[in-house]
Amino acid sequence: MKRIAIDMDEVMANTFKKHLELYNKDFGETLTPEQVVGRKLRDYHPHRHQEIQAYFDNPDFLRDLEVIEGSQEVIRELSESFEIFIATAAMEIPKSFTAKYEWLQEHFPFLNEMNYVFCGNKSIIHADYLIDDSTRHFKGFQGQGILFTAPHNIHETGYTRVDTWWDVRQLFLGGKSS
Amino acid sequence: MKRIAIDMDEVMANTFKKHLELYNKDFGETLTPEQVVGRKLRDYHPHRHQEIQAYFDNPDFLRDLEVIEGSQEVIRELSESFEIFIATAAMEIPKSFTAKYEWLQEHFPFLNEMNYVFCGNKSIIHADYLIDDSTRHFKGFQGQGILFTAPHNIHETGYTRVDTWWDVRQLFLGGKSS
Repeated sequence: MKRIAIDMDEVMANTFKKHLELYNKDFGETLTPEQVVGRKLRDYHPHRHQEIQAYFDNPDFLRDLEVIEGSQEVIRELSESFEIFIATAAMEIPKSFTAKYEWLQEHFPFLNEMNYVFCGNKSIIHADYLIDDSTRHFKGFQGQGILFTAPHNIHETGYTRVDTWWDVRQLFLGGKSS
Repeated sequence: MKRIAIDMDEVMANTFKKHLELYNKDFGETLTPEQVVGRKLRDYHPHRHQEIQAYFDNPDFLRDLEVIEGSQEVIRELSESFEIFIATAAMEIPKSFTAKYEWLQEHFPFLNEMNYVFCGNKSIIHADYLIDDSTRHFKGFQGQGILFTAPHNIHETGYTRVDTWWDVRQLFLGGKSS
């Protein structure tokens, strides 16, 4: 059975949406998703780099993120034909561990928690595929990287790209539907 | 550069010693390490299985474990010639995340935290070697498993075994000394 490793933030969990909403509210801004396309929020307003990153240090921020559309349905389908691991870069934000664990348990109860991986450098992941929104994680990864579209990566080229979970289903399961 | 993944409990951190001391104290027992050789403490007194496992749910238990002799010195030496990752089975005890992270930061400050991996099923680890006290983690691991002697595994055969960190040094660095 082939193995697919899946990133959490911006792939399963809609980190960006909540981040932008909170930032706009807290700083009286009116940034739209379209305005920050091609870069990270922190790169758009670099003078508030620290404040923008600080949201991630709050476990409550990560605990109630929205699930990205289609991820539950398609990951459940994939899990019938592939071995699924969740590989999330948690080491940059150690305070995120419990929130990430609980979020996965709540929204993806059909996944085995023994298949969660909280790591930093994803070259340690032994899998055939890695679905991720950050191309940096494909460097050193031995399998095939699949770039999940997020506002910040929209201009990156040279990778197999999927825009939605329906694209992921098409890629791995073809015309097969549930 | 070849990569070595290293387990924490019973390899870097002396979980067993503290567990046995606390258990003896709390339950008025006088078990010696020699008496529980070849099995886990929970298998020795199965009627207290739950109480014995409950120690691991206390983050304080894991936070101040003794460092296993030689691990700091030898891992530092190995890190000059090998890529070192720490691979610990944390998913069975989600409350352990922060304690494990802080313990590593305190006792192994020379390691990059991006190379910590908190996981469950270690077949996800992409490394050339895995030093571990639990043979179950060698199943599905693609590299070479190296069994680090702990009381519970003393009777297991069929694996490359190291009794101490000096044995690890000898195995990977030969006669070379710091």
